[in-house]
Amino acid sequence: MPTAEFDLIRRCFTRPPVHGAGEVSVVSLVSLGIGDDCAVLQPTPGQQWCVSTDTLVAGVHFFEDVDAARLGHKALAVNLSDLAACGATPRAFFLALSLPRAMAAKEAWCQSLAHGLFALADAHGAVLAGGDTTRGPLSLTLTVMGEVPQGQALLRSGARVGDEVWISGDLGGAYLGLQSRREPGRFALGPLFQAAIDRLECPQPRVALGQALRGIAHSAIDLSDGLVADLGHVARASGQADGPLHFELDFDRLPAHPALALLDDVQRQQAILAGGDDYELAFTAPVGAHAAVLAAAQASGTPVHCVGRVRPAQPAEAAVIVVADGQALAPPTGGFVHF
Amino acid sequence: MPTAEFDLIRRCFTRPPVHGAGEVSVVSLVSLGIGDDCAVLQPTPGQQWCVSTDTLVAGVHFFEDVDAARLGHKALAVNLSDLAACGATPRAFFLALSLPRAMAAKEAWCQSLAHGLFALADAHGAVLAGGDTTRGPLSLTLTVMGEVPQGQALLRSGARVGDEVWISGDLGGAYLGLQSRREPGRFALGPLFQAAIDRLECPQPRVALGQALRGIAHSAIDLSDGLVADLGHVARASGQADGPLHFELDFDRLPAHPALALLDDVQRQQAILAGGDDYELAFTAPVGAHAAVLAAAQASGTPVHCVGRVRPAQPAEAAVIVVADGQALAPPTGGFVHF
Repeated sequence: MPTAEFDLIRRCFTRPPVHGAGEVSVVSLVSLGIGDDCAVLQPTPGQQWCVSTDTLVAGVHFFEDVDAARLGHKALAVNLSDLAACGATPRAFFLALSLPRAMAAKEAWCQSLAHGLFALADAHGAVLAGGDTTRGPLSLTLTVMGEVPQGQALLRSGARVGDEVWISGDLGGAYLGLQSRREPGRFALGPLFQAAIDRLECPQPRVALGQALRGIAHSAIDLSDGLVADLGHVARASGQADGPLHFELDFDRLPAHPALALLDDVQRQQAILAGGDDYELAFTAPVGAHAAVLAAAQASGTPVHCVGRVRPAQPAEAAVIVVADGQALAPPTGGFVHF
Repeated sequence: MPTAEFDLIRRCFTRPPVHGAGEVSVVSLVSLGIGDDCAVLQPTPGQQWCVSTDTLVAGVHFFEDVDAARLGHKALAVNLSDLAACGATPRAFFLALSLPRAMAAKEAWCQSLAHGLFALADAHGAVLAGGDTTRGPLSLTLTVMGEVPQGQALLRSGARVGDEVWISGDLGGAYLGLQSRREPGRFALGPLFQAAIDRLECPQPRVALGQALRGIAHSAIDLSDGLVADLGHVARASGQADGPLHFELDFDRLPAHPALALLDDVQRQQAILAGGDDYELAFTAPVGAHAAVLAAAQASGTPVHCVGRVRPAQPAEAAVIVVADGQALAPPTGGFVHF
């Protein structure tokens, strides 16, 4: 990449050092990796690191004409959502940015991308600690690191028979947002559809809820592939300890995004059960912790809904069963494919 | 990505759990991220984490027809080289792999990529702790994490006036390898050129040397952009503390890859001063540590060469001056552009 473009990227993504400074101060950060071979991070005593990495590719995970600030926001949000699912406190992130020549030269576009990224990072106290910029097809790979008190990370494998199943926020908004972005003429535009598009493009990771659930929830996952697919991951991971289990969900208790009221029943069911990209948390907790879950939700300002139970299962049974009017629904067709 | 392909990738990149097990046991690793939202890492008391991320894009950093095992090797090697430059001990790495449809379907290709990656990872005790696989143009982003005793990370900013300048191994091999891969008919093939191509495609990160230099070297960097460009980074980073400094190098002491003997003087000089991708270490150490550097090199089985000194500089002077026969050479034209 020509030097002028490197300078541009550097201007957009370099900020004053944060050593011991103000709001975004990160005691665990020693030396910034931007400009050195590595970032050097100081672990907080008694804490473990949670690390996750996620890639967004143009044309696969986002439309190439998406607003750059929203792209920056989403790239970090989907990664912070993984930290949320583990109950971790965000600390640092690393950005590998691959940019085509045309975009690298657009200062306004790069500034906007950085703006969206940093606004969300600042809101969660995460510091850009290093990265790499290369010439190539547009994509962003972020690696996020957070801290969690030793042994308290929420895992997918912790669900136990008898647990209640909970979901934060509501479901299906991103699915509808994607439909209306794909076929702009199909839906009448209005505030509800805009809210659905916002859900697709600006998901809010449930970081505060995840932290509040430490010591309360048995298991957690963030919903990126769709409710049934993601809970299937939890059921399989958890079933290895005490024998097979499955999730029995009550369809009428599943929280739907307000805009889904405009869909027919079949589409609505698909959006709720198989729509991905919502980045809500699904988690399980013992029945005795019901009040504690509600208190954690209130403390973190996050709505939660108790939607089912974890049951023992036969080896061949489905990992997730959704019941409506006393009948099991047919499983949704296919998982969520991002585009 | 269709489920069958996900399964293929999973088969290629999933290995038995390493908790407390055998050769690759990593005491710091608690829970693998593959299959969970995050990997959970247990810091070793008294250590800091060094973290670095690097992307390789097809057609920019490697030829699309490169051998997959060599690609896997190189993707990890360039990242381990950053840990080496900090003196860190590799612990874990994360792989974000973007694959076009045609490649994701080729099991032999994916197995070969995994084989090259794991062979180098095992040699350095680094464990694949998580990642992300997406459909998209071929690229690999790796994030590596290593540990270093508190306060002992080697940084670019530590060079001091009077330091000796050292280089490991030899220079210019990868540059020549790239030329002969670009224009296969231009050079007579033979063992020397094959060695140069090996340097380009299979660089060996100087991990053991980096660790051995902790407490001895004042500063270090790995050579990816070319000698003059990379030492310029060190001179500028270090010059902020005690005033401007520059590196004065003796051209005749710069170690050249054996295959460079086949080039004319102009090409040879370009390869040594501006050829990138060699992934040797350049470092500085006080004169009094000369014997300690040689001992560290011997202990780590790595050849090193003392090639110059760090001098005080005027603000406008070049950051790196290369002297041959008592005359300063003209700076090389341009930095290394990977393709």
